[in-house]
Amino acid sequence: VSSPFISFLTDFGERATAPAVCRGVMWNICPDARILDLTHAVTAFSIREGAFLLWSTIGYLPVGVHVAVVDPGVGTSRSPIVIRAERGDLLIGPDNGLLRPAAARLGGIREARLAANRALWLPETSNNFHGRDIFSPVAAHLARGVALQEVGPPLATDTLIDLELPAASVREGRLNTAVVFVDRFGNCRLAGDLPDLNGAIGPVTTGQRLAIQLAAARHEVVWSSTFGLVDPGKALLYRDGDTAGLALAVNQGSAAEQFGLALGDLVRIETV
Amino acid sequence: VSSPFISFLTDFGERATAPAVCRGVMWNICPDARILDLTHAVTAFSIREGAFLLWSTIGYLPVGVHVAVVDPGVGTSRSPIVIRAERGDLLIGPDNGLLRPAAARLGGIREARLAANRALWLPETSNNFHGRDIFSPVAAHLARGVALQEVGPPLATDTLIDLELPAASVREGRLNTAVVFVDRFGNCRLAGDLPDLNGAIGPVTTGQRLAIQLAAARHEVVWSSTFGLVDPGKALLYRDGDTAGLALAVNQGSAAEQFGLALGDLVRIETV
Amino acid sequence: VSSPFISFLTDFGERATAPAVCRGVMWNICPDARILDLTHAVTAFSIREGAFLLWSTIGYLPVGVHVAVVDPGVGTSRSPIVIRAERGDLLIGPDNGLLRPAAARLGGIREARLAANRALWLPETSNNFHGRDIFSPVAAHLARGVALQEVGPPLATDTLIDLELPAASVREGRLNTAVVFVDRFGNCRLAGDLPDLNGAIGPVTTGQRLAIQLAAARHEVVWSSTFGLVDPGKALLYRDGDTAGLALAVNQGSAAEQFGLALGDLVRIETV
Repeated sequence: VSSPFISFLTDFGERATAPAVCRGVMWNICPDARILDLTHAVTAFSIREGAFLLWSTIGYLPVGVHVAVVDPGVGTSRSPIVIRAERGDLLIGPDNGLLRPAAARLGGIREARLAANRALWLPETSNNFHGRDIFSPVAAHLARGVALQEVGPPLATDTLIDLELPAASVREGRLNTAVVFVDRFGNCRLAGDLPDLNGAIGPVTTGQRLAIQLAAARHEVVWSSTFGLVDPGKALLYRDGDTAGLALAVNQGSAAEQFGLALGDLVRIETV
Repeated sequence: VSSPFISFLTDFGERATAPAVCRGVMWNICPDARILDLTHAVTAFSIREGAFLLWSTIGYLPVGVHVAVVDPGVGTSRSPIVIRAERGDLLIGPDNGLLRPAAARLGGIREARLAANRALWLPETSNNFHGRDIFSPVAAHLARGVALQEVGPPLATDTLIDLELPAASVREGRLNTAVVFVDRFGNCRLAGDLPDLNGAIGPVTTGQRLAIQLAAARHEVVWSSTFGLVDPGKALLYRDGDTAGLALAVNQGSAAEQFGLALGDLVRIETV
Repeated sequence: VSSPFISFLTDFGERATAPAVCRGVMWNICPDARILDLTHAVTAFSIREGAFLLWSTIGYLPVGVHVAVVDPGVGTSRSPIVIRAERGDLLIGPDNGLLRPAAARLGGIREARLAANRALWLPETSNNFHGRDIFSPVAAHLARGVALQEVGPPLATDTLIDLELPAASVREGRLNTAVVFVDRFGNCRLAGDLPDLNGAIGPVTTGQRLAIQLAAARHEVVWSSTFGLVDPGKALLYRDGDTAGLALAVNQGSAAEQFGLALGDLVRIETV
């Protein structure tokens, strides 16, 4: 049997020592854990971005324990929770919506609990570093084999905060979607995937002209299977291989900048 | 029994391949080591910053071997050393003060040795990459079980370079302190902790106005348990949860910039 | 016997989740692999930079499996390949020249194969993320013990794309070389090493004045064993300890900027 697996996502920053301290805490409790840093570069306090990144990657990770900390409410009364997903994984983090899209991707929530058992926390806890003091040690205890019911009382699923990541809605002749993630190049990942787009406007082929209607303006773009077929500075809609979803980019440029787009902004895709 | 633990801190930079090369060297010698990269983003050649980061994190790490390389004197006659701390850990790095605060945090120095035994170095050594050629292989041999006396002759503790990180001094009505770390947001960690401040000016409560006297100017700040209670652009003194020490910040701004503060600068905290 | 070793180099970017997804894929297939991230900060699409970084570090890594992905041709007909080097290592990546310098450093190519066996890929593959869908799973299967002949048909070595990293050529009185890597400080690593330079212009000593002839201009520099012996803003030629090769730098400055140098630019070194 292989050693326990823990994935770890935060907004602590790639240069901070905080992620290393948390890994130290985990290895103190579960010395043989395989710890995978998913990313620590989530935009500070952006629960939606963290939720999207966890959702879009978790399907490729081994079954195991997943710790996620994007926690603007640290030090307030928001609850530390553990979710058992249908695939068998355990997700640990704040009850602010961060974990639910990933749990849904793993088949849904089988069980949720409040991580209230202080025996599984560090002996001393701070007001502002629950990643180290609560989430990491609880995760490591679970990875080591502590039973889920030990972490605290059950929570009804419908009491958990739900984030409602933007979803695509298929209408006759148009797809209503929204920006769910902006990467470091300014490429904008949109809600929905190719079947959604096909459902709205029929099959699309490389080179086909489409319109995107934004809040303030309407632009023409082309559908393309690759960046290289589009002139530099021109926009394309494409299927993003990383997440198998729709995305908007500018070849050798930033779609976010060129169109003034940010997380959550609405985009309507139509034929021209 | 769990596999050997090695932590690793340098100023090589997060984008460099140098840390990976060192991990390769360690795994060649000690294939089952659990290696934890603490950070490689220490400001280049800043021994004080490296010493602070090692000191502030090591208490959360498993007992094991700790390699730290911030080494402006590489290629000169400064010595490679190994320190056995009272907790049982082994600290390896240059004799320039980098290791001593961490050793003190682990209960003090039980024993120190010069890492002079070339049989534990790489067969070929360079003038400028002792992290790869000396510190990493010595650390890995120790992690693998080589006895400490094998690394070289003993050193008297009082001959080791001492860095003297700034310390807080409690005076009647004021705390004399100094900046010990500036993080990427410009938050300034100060020497000393809340009991020190209480000893100087009595109990403090959120919202209480205090004065900070810098070299050039005097400013009013407030004590606050959280950033959110302070207006954007306004300064606060608070207890930093990461290190359990005092810190100075500007809500949604940079205290380092606003007050012109850098590592080592003196700060006096008083009542208004 | 120690657990399998996999090194991993890409141009995915340090902040991306793509490297973590690939590690997840590898651990799903080979749960006990020791995975070493060499770097993910290779300049996007720079095969030459990736090839240089792999070449310059691989000698320090354990014998094992090495995955490298800098792949501007992803989605085209370029082939996924596996190379068995004489040292015993397996190198996996696109057939675009990325792997050959490293294979040469490990004694040369013993055998090469096309990674065509889809049973070793992920069940679903994308057009643009072969790192996740092809290279990582093939690497993990090989690390786990799958025989090399299982990955696909043999390839004749002379059919593999060769990159031809710049090499130094020794002439009477001058060394013809070129920039092979520019680091984040602007230091320029040059092709060739100290014996090459000695072969061209005889022994050099610290403080000796030399000339570098660039495409557009001629400059005087000094040979120096350390940066500290050269005034700030002044250029030096030196032996880079990381790679044991020649390099050009400006003390406390950027040689790349000061001399307008980039990857591949020719440099002639002469006596003044």
